[in-house]
Amino acid sequence: MKKILVIGIGAGNPDYITLQAVKALNRVDVFFLMDKGQSKDKLIDLRRDICERYISHHDYRFVEAASPERERGDVDYTSSVDDLNLAKQRTFERLINEQLADGQCGGFLVWGDPALYDSTLRILQAILASGACTFEFEVIPGITSVQALAARHKVTLNQIGRSVEITTGRRLAAGQVSDADSLVVMLDAQDAYQQVADQETQIYWGAYLGTPDEILISGKLKDVADEIERVRKNARMANGWIMDTYLLRKP
Amino acid sequence: MKKILVIGIGAGNPDYITLQAVKALNRVDVFFLMDKGQSKDKLIDLRRDICERYISHHDYRFVEAASPERERGDVDYTSSVDDLNLAKQRTFERLINEQLADGQCGGFLVWGDPALYDSTLRILQAILASGACTFEFEVIPGITSVQALAARHKVTLNQIGRSVEITTGRRLAAGQVSDADSLVVMLDAQDAYQQVADQETQIYWGAYLGTPDEILISGKLKDVADEIERVRKNARMANGWIMDTYLLRKP
Ligand SMILES: C[S@@+](CC[C@H](N)C(=O)[O-])C[C@H]1O[C@@H](n2cnc3c(N)ncnc32)[C@H](O)[C@@H]1O
Ligand SMILES: C[S@@+](CC[C@H](N)C(=O)[O-])C[C@H]1O[C@@H](n2cnc3c(N)ncnc32)[C@H](O)[C@@H]1O
Repeated sequence: MKKILVIGIGAGNPDYITLQAVKALNRVDVFFLMDKGQSKDKLIDLRRDICERYISHHDYRFVEAASPERERGDVDYTSSVDDLNLAKQRTFERLINEQLADGQCGGFLVWGDPALYDSTLRILQAILASGACTFEFEVIPGITSVQALAARHKVTLNQIGRSVEITTGRRLAAGQVSDADSLVVMLDAQDAYQQVADQETQIYWGAYLGTPDEILISGKLKDVADEIERVRKNARMANGWIMDTYLLRKP
Repeated sequence: MKKILVIGIGAGNPDYITLQAVKALNRVDVFFLMDKGQSKDKLIDLRRDICERYISHHDYRFVEAASPERERGDVDYTSSVDDLNLAKQRTFERLINEQLADGQCGGFLVWGDPALYDSTLRILQAILASGACTFEFEVIPGITSVQALAARHKVTLNQIGRSVEITTGRRLAAGQVSDADSLVVMLDAQDAYQQVADQETQIYWGAYLGTPDEILISGKLKDVADEIERVRKNARMANGWIMDTYLLRKP
């Protein structure tokens, strides 16, 4: 039997890694590296770093695979992600069939936690369901960017006895969010916080959380929204890419 | 200046602890232990265990404080929690004033992540705002029970491009939830999943996650809801207490 470990490495700070993840890293024979886009090199380097730092032997290797990219522009979001995932599924199948011998252990290092806005689990489940390869797999949770955000701002995600909604910038911009008083927004490529009507809403914003480039801004939308937009734009220009997330808290 | 570290220790498995938390544990002079209720002894033991296991010196001590209990029964939930937090605030103030010298570091070990359904951060912020004591504080995130749940069931929390709502059993039972297709329910004392109308909804249920007593059940509500209720009742009787959480996923 082949074994796959899907390891959450935390979102940013290498110290976010759990002891469970460190133990899991040490069991892996082959790491599959799949990043794409502008952040690619930085994030692949970070994964290599993590392995060097935390693995206490030298019997492991990396396999980098060209990761398919999502079709952008005027296409339906869910179906473009579906297509992308099908392409990724083929890539994963090939990697598992060709690069992993029976009895060996393969590892996917997932940014943050594999359960949150990440396709690795879905793809592995789809491969198992299709019967294209057989393997056992385990999931190791990791600190998400949402938790990094809350910790760095020293706030809770929920109000007492209330709900928290975690959503995307796309949904916020389209008004497809509930009236939860705590809303966490990820994957925002369009400054969707600028479209929130209630300007008394408190925003806790963070970019590059847990990394040396971390930026934190908080305040009422009416006071800080434009500042965030400016800082965000400059940071993205300076670094070539940005990852940011925020909590919106109704008054 | 006094320093306080609020350290998320993860929800269950001692290996859920992060390296950041291990480093933080090693900086603490005095740990404040505040658990209450039936789970008290078990959870306090677990905290002592974690300190013994991960702290590499002997220069720390524990201070146990009788933790005030929330008034139950026919009282308004939010205001009973407010009262409780005020009582806790007084206790925390006393601990910080009496047990911590200037330049020393106090530690609160929080189950899971301090940002999720936990009052420690809110209380410390309230003390600072009141001016009753002064201190600096830092927050160290930890793996939540929500993440443990998702990892053990090998599922994602969100569907592609969709939202996740994290809420309480109380709110689910009262119908105070949005129509998010992924709903995570915590703090459910009343088997609120039994009140979900759509019996095709998938439930991923977990109790004592990450511990040797862990129980996992998943399936459609129509197939497993009664089994969960039975297993839950028996486990609570056998252990004297239960902690469980679940993800509801609409078809
Ligand atoms: C594809 S999702 C992956 C989320 C990841 N699995 C997690 O647990 O955080 C990428 C989004 O996560 C957020 N994100 C990830 N890392 C971040 C960081 N270090 N700082 C701020 N936001 C981050 C951003 O909203 C980004 O658009
Ligand atoms: C007061 S909240 C604290 C949550 C915690 N801060 C966290 O991050 O998971 C307690 C609730 O968390 C959930 N919970 C905590 N630990 C759990 C575990 N090991 N297994 C299942 N549920 C757990 C249960 O729903 C319980 O009612």
